[in-house]
This record gives sequence, structure tokens and C-alpha cells, in this order.
Amino acid sequence: MGKIYVFNGPNLNLLGQREPRHYGRQSLRQIEDELQGMAKAAAVECDFRQTNHEGVLLDWIAALSEEDFLILNAGAWTHTSIALRDALAGVKVPALEIHLSNIHAREEFRQHSLIAAVCIGQICGLGKQSYTLALRYAIDALRPVAAHTEEAER
Amino acid sequence: MGKIYVFNGPNLNLLGQREPRHYGRQSLRQIEDELQGMAKAAAVECDFRQTNHEGVLLDWIAALSEEDFLILNAGAWTHTSIALRDALAGVKVPALEIHLSNIHAREEFRQHSLIAAVCIGQICGLGKQSYTLALRYAIDALRPVAAHTEEAER
Amino acid sequence: MGKIYVFNGPNLNLLGQREPRHYGRQSLRQIEDELQGMAKAAAVECDFRQTNHEGVLLDWIAALSEEDFLILNAGAWTHTSIALRDALAGVKVPALEIHLSNIHAREEFRQHSLIAAVCIGQICGLGKQSYTLALRYAIDALRPVAAHTEEAER
Amino acid sequence: MGKIYVFNGPNLNLLGQREPRHYGRQSLRQIEDELQGMAKAAAVECDFRQTNHEGVLLDWIAALSEEDFLILNAGAWTHTSIALRDALAGVKVPALEIHLSNIHAREEFRQHSLIAAVCIGQICGLGKQSYTLALRYAIDALRPVAAHTEEAER
Amino acid sequence: MGKIYVFNGPNLNLLGQREPRHYGRQSLRQIEDELQGMAKAAAVECDFRQTNHEGVLLDWIAALSEEDFLILNAGAWTHTSIALRDALAGVKVPALEIHLSNIHAREEFRQHSLIAAVCIGQICGLGKQSYTLALRYAIDALRPVAAHTEEAER
Amino acid sequence: MGKIYVFNGPNLNLLGQREPRHYGRQSLRQIEDELQGMAKAAAVECDFRQTNHEGVLLDWIAALSEEDFLILNAGAWTHTSIALRDALAGVKVPALEIHLSNIHAREEFRQHSLIAAVCIGQICGLGKQSYTLALRYAIDALRPVAAHTEEAER
Amino acid sequence: MGKIYVFNGPNLNLLGQREPRHYGRQSLRQIEDELQGMAKAAAVECDFRQTNHEGVLLDWIAALSEEDFLILNAGAWTHTSIALRDALAGVKVPALEIHLSNIHAREEFRQHSLIAAVCIGQICGLGKQSYTLALRYAIDALRPVAAHTEEAER
Amino acid sequence: MGKIYVFNGPNLNLLGQREPRHYGRQSLRQIEDELQGMAKAAAVECDFRQTNHEGVLLDWIAALSEEDFLILNAGAWTHTSIALRDALAGVKVPALEIHLSNIHAREEFRQHSLIAAVCIGQICGLGKQSYTLALRYAIDALRPVAAHTEEAER
Amino acid sequence: MGKIYVFNGPNLNLLGQREPRHYGRQSLRQIEDELQGMAKAAAVECDFRQTNHEGVLLDWIAALSEEDFLILNAGAWTHTSIALRDALAGVKVPALEIHLSNIHAREEFRQHSLIAAVCIGQICGLGKQSYTLALRYAIDALRPVAAHTEEAER
Amino acid sequence: MGKIYVFNGPNLNLLGQREPRHYGRQSLRQIEDELQGMAKAAAVECDFRQTNHEGVLLDWIAALSEEDFLILNAGAWTHTSIALRDALAGVKVPALEIHLSNIHAREEFRQHSLIAAVCIGQICGLGKQSYTLALRYAIDALRPVAAHTEEAER
Amino acid sequence: MGKIYVFNGPNLNLLGQREPRHYGRQSLRQIEDELQGMAKAAAVECDFRQTNHEGVLLDWIAALSEEDFLILNAGAWTHTSIALRDALAGVKVPALEIHLSNIHAREEFRQHSLIAAVCIGQICGLGKQSYTLALRYAIDALRPVAAHTEEAER
Amino acid sequence: MGKIYVFNGPNLNLLGQREPRHYGRQSLRQIEDELQGMAKAAAVECDFRQTNHEGVLLDWIAALSEEDFLILNAGAWTHTSIALRDALAGVKVPALEIHLSNIHAREEFRQHSLIAAVCIGQICGLGKQSYTLALRYAIDALRPVAAHTEEAER
Repeated sequence: MGKIYVFNGPNLNLLGQREPRHYGRQSLRQIEDELQGMAKAAAVECDFRQTNHEGVLLDWIAALSEEDFLILNAGAWTHTSIALRDALAGVKVPALEIHLSNIHAREEFRQHSLIAAVCIGQICGLGKQSYTLALRYAIDALRPVAAHTEEAER
Repeated sequence: MGKIYVFNGPNLNLLGQREPRHYGRQSLRQIEDELQGMAKAAAVECDFRQTNHEGVLLDWIAALSEEDFLILNAGAWTHTSIALRDALAGVKVPALEIHLSNIHAREEFRQHSLIAAVCIGQICGLGKQSYTLALRYAIDALRPVAAHTEEAER
Repeated sequence: MGKIYVFNGPNLNLLGQREPRHYGRQSLRQIEDELQGMAKAAAVECDFRQTNHEGVLLDWIAALSEEDFLILNAGAWTHTSIALRDALAGVKVPALEIHLSNIHAREEFRQHSLIAAVCIGQICGLGKQSYTLALRYAIDALRPVAAHTEEAER
Repeated sequence: MGKIYVFNGPNLNLLGQREPRHYGRQSLRQIEDELQGMAKAAAVECDFRQTNHEGVLLDWIAALSEEDFLILNAGAWTHTSIALRDALAGVKVPALEIHLSNIHAREEFRQHSLIAAVCIGQICGLGKQSYTLALRYAIDALRPVAAHTEEAER
Repeated sequence: MGKIYVFNGPNLNLLGQREPRHYGRQSLRQIEDELQGMAKAAAVECDFRQTNHEGVLLDWIAALSEEDFLILNAGAWTHTSIALRDALAGVKVPALEIHLSNIHAREEFRQHSLIAAVCIGQICGLGKQSYTLALRYAIDALRPVAAHTEEAER
Repeated sequence: MGKIYVFNGPNLNLLGQREPRHYGRQSLRQIEDELQGMAKAAAVECDFRQTNHEGVLLDWIAALSEEDFLILNAGAWTHTSIALRDALAGVKVPALEIHLSNIHAREEFRQHSLIAAVCIGQICGLGKQSYTLALRYAIDALRPVAAHTEEAER
Repeated sequence: MGKIYVFNGPNLNLLGQREPRHYGRQSLRQIEDELQGMAKAAAVECDFRQTNHEGVLLDWIAALSEEDFLILNAGAWTHTSIALRDALAGVKVPALEIHLSNIHAREEFRQHSLIAAVCIGQICGLGKQSYTLALRYAIDALRPVAAHTEEAER
Repeated sequence: MGKIYVFNGPNLNLLGQREPRHYGRQSLRQIEDELQGMAKAAAVECDFRQTNHEGVLLDWIAALSEEDFLILNAGAWTHTSIALRDALAGVKVPALEIHLSNIHAREEFRQHSLIAAVCIGQICGLGKQSYTLALRYAIDALRPVAAHTEEAER
Repeated sequence: MGKIYVFNGPNLNLLGQREPRHYGRQSLRQIEDELQGMAKAAAVECDFRQTNHEGVLLDWIAALSEEDFLILNAGAWTHTSIALRDALAGVKVPALEIHLSNIHAREEFRQHSLIAAVCIGQICGLGKQSYTLALRYAIDALRPVAAHTEEAER
Repeated sequence: MGKIYVFNGPNLNLLGQREPRHYGRQSLRQIEDELQGMAKAAAVECDFRQTNHEGVLLDWIAALSEEDFLILNAGAWTHTSIALRDALAGVKVPALEIHLSNIHAREEFRQHSLIAAVCIGQICGLGKQSYTLALRYAIDALRPVAAHTEEAER
Repeated sequence: MGKIYVFNGPNLNLLGQREPRHYGRQSLRQIEDELQGMAKAAAVECDFRQTNHEGVLLDWIAALSEEDFLILNAGAWTHTSIALRDALAGVKVPALEIHLSNIHAREEFRQHSLIAAVCIGQICGLGKQSYTLALRYAIDALRPVAAHTEEAER
Repeated sequence: MGKIYVFNGPNLNLLGQREPRHYGRQSLRQIEDELQGMAKAAAVECDFRQTNHEGVLLDWIAALSEEDFLILNAGAWTHTSIALRDALAGVKVPALEIHLSNIHAREEFRQHSLIAAVCIGQICGLGKQSYTLALRYAIDALRPVAAHTEEAER
């Protein structure tokens, strides 16, 4: 079984301190802790990282495979990096685009995503829950059978 | 405690038969059944409707209150109806915008949402799971305490 | 002698409760009452209606005649409905476009009116008085002679 | 064998009285009569309707099947209704877009059709004959063999 | 009590002789006379001026105070003068934008007002009555109590 | 009585071999044969030509008179040739614009017709039948009386 | 017989010293002298002026009559002053727009003239001869008979 | 001494018959006669031609030399032909762009000239006199000394 | 040695009273006093002026010479006046563009400067210090040697 | 084995004399000679032509077949001729677009190629070598085996 | 007391050698030396750095605090990096944007700054003095009291 | 003699595995091998590199000198990196832009190259041969004499 990757782009290291009106008061570490808890409970492996270096993110993506699943908060690069789009198109990993804030309700230059066309979907505006709902989806995607069962049991 | 409303806009009655490449093969009825199951399990009330008449949707929204939660798949009106935006801004119900397909990866005229600015967030591209993840969020929003507990127990 | 019609478009039923910063705290009913008082004093008939259904408004307009006068607060349809423009162009009733808020000082998509080209003029931004000044104009338009006399007497 | 539907959108009830420079002096009833005569002669069934309510038109379209043929004068919705486009894409009925006036020679906002991409073709500017030529095409489309014969016999 | 100012911008001295199709056949002097009559009857002071010099208009505006009320027909500067907008924003006088013709139904470059964002509202297209309705509003604004009484008595 | 001209612009000589997805598999010669058959049956003269030289087409148009009728498939020049538009505006021949494919459903640069403003109407997307329906219209236009009779007899 | 006016807008007082690459090395005075010589020879009166004050130019134009002829080098106001356009439209004097440099071969913002729509024509790029050719046209326009004779005699 | 060439582009053969509102009632032949008369009087050679074939015009231009002078009414190609612009830039002949109508006061697509950037100036809107004034300029340009003398003598 | 000119455009007379959020609470007089003090200390002459009349500013600029230095706060004309740009390009005085507020962080129409292309640089957003830093630069520019010495001594 | 065609569009006959800054000092004849030499050495047939007539180029293209290879310097038509694009799409010949100058570093209107979408690639900016490199590619394309061998031997 | 940071973005290491027309002939080292001299004289600490790696710059900014002051020459990233804007918005350090050249007088894509909205102001076009004036401002900002005294003493 | 550098931008490490429809099935290593073979045969030194880090590429370029030659496949940065453009403009190395796919035939955002304006030319769409043809050009550029000889010998 593949692994779930959660990649975070530029300035997300500032989380909790940066513009709380848009991004909330939780740190990225707190989000990671919660996701790792969920992953553990679901018995899947979750690899959570952040970088301010576009080249590093491109390298990380190049190393993924079709069995994996990528949850990607690309931050500002969402709107400017064709290289990121090409990297996602170049590997075959399924990717889910997420954002803490509702980018469609902010400045016009944040309303267009260059990577959307190569992702399967988008969750945004739900703060920390943009991450947790994405993880829930990823778990189901990696474990189709288990997922169905779980769904039935709820 | 408020109620969770799931309103579906134009042509969603065609679901299952309409453009399966974009919208999948499940009918709207099957989606409703799954949501009602989840709602029942969570002990919240869920009111699920569809209409092809913009005026009807405006009337439905006008009747909501702050205690409720709205999950809205506005379909094509997402991109054309300022009246819908005004209705959402006019009542104080929290609204979550959802789409079956990844609207940001389709025609250019589907990439701008007139209602995003008055919604709290957006989930799109995940097919039926756009609905189930939204419902999960809504349940947590209506029952903040219970939600935390549940989160901890998983 | 013709009749004065005051037609109100989508969401105006929410008046008083909806975004008071833009639309004030009076209900549509209170505005109607004031207008009916003025109309009665001027001995003209005033028919005041609201609808959230574009088709209903189109039907109402189709029923007007040249002797009538239309005061139209088309709300959000002002900016999106070519059908409304065509209806106004199709009948010969003189129409005066009004808005509670100053649409030219709001979002860019509210600054262009599709119906202006088929109306005689526009009054906006004066809240309830957008209605009362329009009615005063309509009364003068329906009763040209009386109007002049009244003007002289003041 | 399927049926031929002729659906007319907003304000076409005003025909004959509305802007004769663009739309001519015939009423919609007169057009229907002529079409019914042709249909009868060709032994096909023709269902002719008009509505000012977008939702009603969406409902009508949802009820069509692949064996039918749709002639659609969508009026102003041609330029504004993505919902209409989605409805046409959602059912599999072949649709032919028609207009009384030459929309490409009028205001710029009338020169782009949102529904063209999901129709097989367009006839416009020929007044009543936009309808009759479309019907002739529809008859041929429903009765391919007969059509060929008829063509040969002429 | 403050004073009501009516300032007229470029070319309004040509009124009556200039493009009667758009601006009517009355001279600016005739309009002033009617306004002065109304002001006198309402016991308010009205100062009515015209200039073709933008700098002069800026100087006039700089001299106004919060107790005053400004009715402004800025003519062509409406669409080109950021300096005028800044002057209005710089003083605190309430300003009502008026136009003789319906600017929203004319050339595209006349459909955007640079000053609307700093005015309380707009009346346009009603010819001489754009002035008289504005004055009526101004009188009410300067004399809130009296206005209510008058309203009640009519 | 005038003559019916059918002028075909650039690359239509390639018909049958060129992009069958858009233009079908029939050659231009086959279309001409069918039209000549129809014209003969209706006792009108039909002159059918093709050229890849814009100047040649301009010369042909300059030689037409008011009694004639022009069916014009201008091909790519539809979208680029102001000279063609001027030629059509310069002579008084009624012209009907046709296209084999539905230009409104193709690339954006094919969705605007420079010649539409000087034509009476447009038929497109119906393949060979774009020609035959146009010819039918032209025949009626040249023989108004006969047309009515024929219509009645059918 | 009317008079020929030559009005020069902003910065033309700098002529000869300002950007000789665009405007040449002659002073405005030298141009005036040449024009006065031509006018005298043709026995027409020529009134030649320059101003940096838009209001002054508007006042000058307001004073013209239908019998006069205006040669106008509006300089930079050509591209920014709707007030100037309105003044020209407001009086009935025929106006000929001229420019020393070829404005169509310079910066993009100099390629659109706001006043062209209310002028009879334009001469530009010919330096001093933009003035002399315009004067020659104006003389012919004021003296239609003499002009024809002169034309014949040359 | 070089020669003066007057080249006329597409549809100018229709002059006198085509859209007299824009182009007047004189034929191109009459204009040529007048120009030849002027040229003869000034003892310069004038070569006057018209073509509807863009390639022919390109060939004509390729044959010109620096000693010549070109008066060019490129008609509709003014707005569409980069090839024409390149031809003018490729030879070193001075060229003066002329138009019968005031292209800056017509449709927006006629307001931009692709060839202006490679011409010395433009005369438009003066009907036949656009030609005669251009010829006068060309004569002066070819005979600088004589021109000065003539100017002095007038 | 030349002189330093500080020219202030429209509405800067309102400084201290106008929109303090953007422009601060100091009056223009206070800024002038500080600049005069600095100039005196540096033994250069400083001429400080304000006008609401564009023509006046153009006249002032026309009177400058190459030895002078211009500090220009053109206010709203920065964004609208091509005449101002032409005046600056027409004289050879070095000019430094300044603004009290950060124009690049305000409304979009304030983010483009028409005069930047003819100025040596821009200082904005620093309130009163936009003036004092500009003066410091101007002093250095007028006294290159002294400037270097001073720099060394600090 | 097919043939290699090199087609040259408008104004390339001027080569060597036209704008050497962009196009170099070699004549088209010199380029042809070099290409013929290379072709001969490679034992392929090369047909080299130039035309200023768009229709002629369209005819030439219509005559090509799948076995051939086209090197096309379409000159100015690159940016304006949809007809050329359609011709290339209509035949199945592989085409390589070339330009002497780097069109992407010139005027904006030269930076978009209408024909690129139907060509396999583009070589530009390398002067004469744009032709020789293209020929080298074409030779390899026509002789895949030989090419590989040659490649190996070098 | 905080520290003054001067961060330089991409290619500024090339200074002195790169495009001297825009950036002058001084090296970045020489600028640093002068700034360090000024900082020392003012007894403030100045940290001066350059990087070609966007991620490095983001990391540097993330490490700043509210007591510091940032002078930022972001080079080309000014126009492309939303990530840089977000970093500046995320920390609370006051930032002053500087440029060696007058970016508003260069290519259009250099005229919009993505970071201006989160900086306090901008100094550009003054070469080395863009740095020294910015430092002077920063020193005053860090030492408000001292600054006032110094100001008084000069 | 200088050296030939071949720099490859983001995601080119994925070659062979990434989107074979656009980029072919060869790995970057295979391309390098072929180029090294050619370089060796021509006795020039070739330095071939790839990076996903923009800063690294900027550093590489900063180290080049005028004697070198750069072949640059900048990948996605072609369309987004002004910093890359500035680096190329800052050093004096001649650069040739190459692409594996025909960027002009793909998405619109790939059709504009920010670096073209500072490169000598472009080769695209020819897959591996975009590299080999570029190398051939580079060899000729570095060894002008040898190149001519070689050309003659072939």
C-alpha cells in the first residue's frame, strides 16, 4: 500500500503567527500532530513536510509514485508556478489541492489556481479541517475496501 | 440545535444520466440516501432538496436562520447568479459551496464563482465525497463539543 | 389615466434584515405603505409587488401598457438579465430604474446595468427616498398638467 | 419515431408587438400554425411551447430523449444561462439553435452564444423562416430514409 | 443651518443650444430660476454656479463644510477627473451626483463615474427633474425634522 | 429575375479530404450537383464558384446587383477580412452567410464573424444542409409569390 | 462670411524647443505667420491662439458659430478630454483635427482620439504642413464657389 | 526626379456606388482625373492604380524607390495587413496614408491602422480632398525648392 | 547655480484636513516650512507652490530651465494628465516624482503614473519624508561636489 | 520518397534590401542556392518558391501530399491568415514553421503565430540558418533510416 | 533597539557588470560599504545580504521581528512572487521597497509591484541613492527621538 | 575558445517518464549522450546540466562569459521568470532558447516566452532534435571559420 504525503509550500512555517484573520491561530506543527493521529488510527503512513524552496518541492514530487496520494497546500505557488503544475502532470500520483483560507473570496490574483487542472479536486476555506477532510478522503482512496466498510458502519 | 440543509441547483436532477465523465454515475437520490444515513447516525436533521427554479432557491434561502447550516451545490448558477449571492449575504446562515466536478479544471467560465465571496469555503472535484465531507464538516460545525470528542475518540 | 407600477426583484423581501449597511433598516412593507400614502394623496393608483422569480417579473412587464409608468428595482437582475432588458424594450411602458444603494460605489460587477439602456433614467443610493423621488417623478409624468400646477403652488 | 419539440424562451410571447425592427410583425401563434401545418404534411409530431421561466425550460429539456429533436429559440438566455447549456449537455437530444434576428449583427453581448457549443448548428436572421428551415432539417433528421427519397423526388 | 450648493461643470453653459436630443431645450438659467423658487419656498439658501475650469471647481469644493449639501453635475469630468474625486473625498460635505441625460444608456466611456464612490447617490436621465428631485432630497437632508413633517402633511 | 450565386472561399476546394470531423466527407462538387438539381427544379439559375484568392472574391461581389441573391461560405475570411465586409456593404445584394461546421462551437477566433453585420442571416453546423436550406431560402426570396404558393401546397 | 479659427492646446507654446524629434524646430509664432500670410492672400480672417488652460479652450469653442471653421490642434487633450469632445459636439462649428506628429505611430495612449468622432477629419504627421493643408481645406470650405474656381484654374 | 504613385486598395473600384454616407458620390475615375490635372500643372508624373488583390499591391510597392512618393489609400487592408506594413517598411519610399472617411469616427476596428507606424502621416475624412491635399504635399516633397518658392508667391 | 522647485498639484491645499489615513495630519504650510529650513541650511534656493489649475502648472513648468531641479507632487494629475507628461518632456529640467501615500498600495487607477516615464525616479508612501528625502536628493544633484563632501563627513 | 518544399510568403522577395537589422543582408536567391546544394548532397529533391499572393500559397499547399515535407516561412501571414492555418490542417503534409528574425523578441503582434498549432515545430531568429537547420531536419524526417545511420557515424 | 536589514534579490550580484544603462556601474559591494559607513555613523546595526534563491529570502524574512526595519530590493521577484508578498504580510517588520532603476518608466511588466501593497513606501530610479535615502529613512524610523533632534539641528 | 553550455530547467529530470505525448520517451541522459558525442566529434567542450532550483540556474548563468554559448531549455520558467530574463540580459553570453514540444501549439500560458527578448532565436517542437540542431548552430557560432569549411565540404 502507498503512503500519504502532505506537502506544504512557502510561508506555511509562519502559521499561527501569520495573518490570523486568514490562516487561523494554529501552528503547522499542531496540524501535523492531528493528522498523524488520524493516520495512525487508520493504519496508514503519513509524511508531512514544509518548504520555502520551490526546487525542493519539485524534487519531492518527482520522487512520488502512482501508489501514493498527495495532499498539497502549495500556498502562493498555487497561482504562479507552472513548474509545479508540470511536476504534478509529470508524475502520476493523485493530488488533492487544499487551502486554509477560501482563496475564491480573497484578492483576484488568488482566485486562479495553476495547479487545479492537474489535481483531482480542491478543499479550501475550512482552516485546519481543510487538512483533516483531505486526509479522510486520502485514506478512503488508498483503502477503497476498508473505506466502504467504515462508511457502512457509521 | 439548527438543521443542516443541502440545496441542489439546476440539472442536478439529471445526475447519473448527465455527462458521467464530469459528474459520475450515481443519482442524486443515492447521494441523499447516504447523507441521510450519516445524519441519522450523528443525530442531526438533514433537509435535502433540488430545484431548477432560481426563485425557489432564493425563497428557500430566505427562510434559513443563523442556527442552520447550508451545504450548497448551486450548479451553473454558481457562475451567473448575483441574486443567489445576495440571498446568501442577506441571511446569516453559514454556507459551504460544493461541486461534484473540479470546476477549476474545466471551461474558463466555470472557474469563477460568484458565491464564493459569501461562503465559508469550497469542496469540489471529489464526486459524491464532496457531499459527504461537507456533511461531516457541517455536523462538526453544528455540534462543536461533540465534534471534538468524536475527533479524539477516533 | 394609466397606473403606476412598482416592481421589486430578488431578495428585496429580505429588506430590513439583509445587509443594513447597504440597504437600511426599513422593511419593504414600510416603503410600500409610504408610497401608497403618497399615491393616494396624488390620486393615482399604485401597484406594488415583489418577486424572486424572473419569469414572474417578465410576465408582469408583458402585461403593462404605454399609459402606465414603471418604477423598477430589479435588484441583482439589473446586472445579469438580458431577458429583463428585452421585456422592457418589448413593451412601451416608460420605466425608471431605482436602487436603494449607490450601485456605482460598490463591487465592479454591480456598476453596469443591463437595463439602463431601455430605461429613461436612474435614481440610486438614496435609500427609501430612491422610491419616493421616483414616485414623485412618476406622478408628474402621468399627470403633466396637474404636475405643473403643483410645482407652481409650492 | 421521436417527436420534434420547438421550445421558445423569454419574451417570445411578445412577438409581433415587440421591437418589430428586429423580430418582425408575426405573432408566435402564427409561426406555430405554420409549423404545425408543415409537420402534419410530413407526418411528424411537433410540440411547440413558450415560457418566461428558466426552470420550466430546464424541466422540459430534462424530459426529452435521444429519439426526439429539439428546435430551440432560447432568446436572451442564449447569452446568459449556463444552466441551459448544462441541461442540453445532460440530455442526449440533438438540438438546433435558432434566432429570429441575426444576433451576430446586433449588440456585442448578443454575439456570443453559451449554448452553441452543445447544439449541432444555428440558423438566425431569417425571421419566421429560421423556424421553417429548422423544422425542415428536423424532419429530415428524424426520417433519414424518407428524407433521402424526398430529396431525390424533388 | 448649512447651505445647498449646486455646481455645474464643463459645457453646461451651452445648455438649451447643445445636443437637445441628450440635454433638452431648457437653458441653465431657467433651471436655476426654478431651483431658486423651490429653495425660497423651503426657506433654504441655494448657491448655483457653473464653470468650465476644473481648478475653479476644486477651489469651490475646498471651501465647503460639513453642514452644507452639494448637488453636483460634473459633466464630462465625471468620467475623467480623479482630482474631482479627491476633492470630494477631502471635504466632508455630502454630495449628490446628477446628470441631465441617462449616462448609463450612452457611450461606454460615459457609463463609469469616477466620483460615484465618494457621493451618496445618483440621479440621472430625468432632465430638469434630475435637478429638482435632487434639491428636494437636499432640502430634506438639511432639515430632517421639517422634512418628516412635510412628508406627513402631503 | 435575378440569379442565385453561391461563392465559396479559401480551402473549400479541399472538401471531403480536409478535416472530416469538422467538414464531412462530401466534396464541393457533390454539393454543387445537389444545389444545381434543386435550382433546376425550382427554375432558378444558380452560379456556384470557389476561389482561394480574396481579390477574386471581391471582384465577383463587385459584379453582383440588387436583383441577385448571394449565398456565401467565406471560410476563414469570415473572421479576418474587413475588405470582404466592405465589399458586401458596397453592393446591395442580399447575402446569406453559411458554414459547414458550427463555428460557434469551435476555436474562439472562429466565433466572431466580421461579415455577419452586413448579411441578413446565418446558417451553420448543418453540413451539406447548410447549403440546401440556404438555397431554399434564396429561392423563396427571389420568388416571393411562388414561395408562398409552394409553402401552402406542401 | 465666417472666420477661420486655429486653436492650439497645451504645451504648443513650447514648440521649437520641445522634443524636436516629434515636433520639429519651428516655433508656433512662425507657423502663425505663415498661416496669416496664406489667409490674407485668400482674403479670409484667421484667428490663431494657444492656451494651456482647458477651461479657456472650452470658453473659446462655446463662442464659435456655424459660419466659422475650426482648425484644432488639441495636443494632449486629444486623448483625455471628454469635456472638449462635448464642447465640439455642443456647438455646430465644423472642426478639423490636426497634429504635428503622426500620433498613430507613437505611444499607444496617443493613438486614440476622443475628439475624432465629432470632427470632420484629421491631418497628422506632416509637421507645419498639417497646419497649411488644413488651412487650405478650411478656405475652400468657407468659400465653396471660389474654391471650385481656384481648383479649376490651377 | 521621382514619380508620385497613388495606390488604392480593395473595393475602391466601387466608389460612387458604395455607401455614399461614408465615401461620397464621386467615382475613383473622377478623382484620378482631378489629380492628373493637378500633377500636370505641377509638372510631376502621377501613376494612379487600384487593385482588389493584396499580392498585386505588395508587388507594386516592392518596385518603388526612394526617389518616389507614395500616396496610399489601403482601404480595409489598413487594419488587417501586416504584410502591407512589412512591404512599406521594406522599401524606402516615403508614404502618406489617406482615407476618404474619418476612420477614427467609425467602428472600433477601423480606428487602428497597422500601416501608420511606417507612414509619415495621415489625412482622412476629407473625401476627395484627402487625395488633393496629399498630392499637394507630395508635390512639395518631391520639389522642395520649387515648393518654397510657390509657398512664398501665394 | 539653479533653483529647486517644489510644485504641488490639485487638492494638496487641503492637506492636514483631507483623508488623514492616506495623507497624514500636517498641513502643506508645515511641510514647506521644513523644506525651506533644509534649503536655507544647504544654501540653495527653494520655490514651493501649489495650484488646483492644470494650466497654471503647465505654465510654471514651461518656465523652468536645465539648471533647475523639480520635485513634483502632481496629485491626481499623475494618473490622468498627458499634458503634464508632455510639459515635462518638453523642458529639460530633471524632475523627481513624489507622493505622500504609497500609490501602489491603493486603488488600481492610482497605480499607474503617466509622468513616471519622463521623471528620473519616484519616492512615495513616506508622508512628509517623501518631501524631505527628495529635497536631500535635489540638493545633492544641484551641488555634486558639496554633496560628496557632506556624504563623507557624516 | 517525397519531396521537400520550401515556401516563402509576402515580401521575402525583398530580402537583402529590406530592414537588414531584422532580416540580414543575404538575398532569397543566395539562401535557395545554399539549400539546393545541401539537398543535392543529401540526394533529396527541394522545391523552393516565393509569392506575395496568399491564394497562390493556398493552392500550392493544397497540392502537397503526406509523403512530402514543408518548410514554411509564411512572413506576415503567420499572424493574420486563418486561411493558411486551415490549408495546413486540411492537407496532411508535415510542416515546419521558420522565421529569419526572432519573432518573439519583436512587436507584440508578431509574437503570436496562427499557424503554429498546425505545424510540428518552429525555428526562428537564426537568419539563414533557420533555413539550413530546417532543411537538415526535413532530410532526416524524409529518410529516417539514413538519418539514424548518419547520426551514428558523426 | 532593532536592526536594519537590507535584502537584495536575484541578479543583484551582477551589479556593475549588468546593463549599466539601467543599473549604473557601481558594484553591490560598493553600495554596501557606503551603507555600512552611514549605519556606523548613526550607531545602528545594518545587515546587508543578497541571494538568487527565493526560498532563502523567504527564510530570512521569516526570521525578522517587529523591532527591525527592512529595506528590500526584490529585483525581478517584485513582479512575480506572491510568496514574497505573503512572507512580508506574515511578519510584522516594516518594509521599504527600493529599486535602482525607475521601474515605472520601463517595460510594462515591470510597472506593477506585487509587494507594494504590503510595504510602507517605495523609492526608485535614484541608483545608489535609492539605498542611501532608504537607509536615512530607516534610521529615523528606528530612532524616532534622535531623528527629530537631528532634524532640528540640521 | 569558449565552451557550449546546455542548461535544463525544472522537471526535465522527469524526461522519458513525464507526459510522453508532449516530451517523447527519451531520457535527458540519452540526449546528453548524443550531444556529447556530437561535441566531441566537433572538438568543442559541452557542459550539460539540469536543475529544479531557479537560484541555481541564475548562479550558473552569472558565471558565463561572452566567449561561451548557451543552449537553454528553461522549461516552465520560460513563462514566469523575469529573474531568468534579467540574468540573461545581465551577462553577455549568446543564448539560444529551445523546447522539446511546440510551445506555440499548447496552452495559451505556454505561448509567451519572457526570455525570448534576450535570446538570439528559438527552436521548438522537434523533440530531441531541438537539442541537436541547436548544438550544430552553437558549434558554427563558436567556430565561424571551421563552420564555413564544414558547410562547404558537406
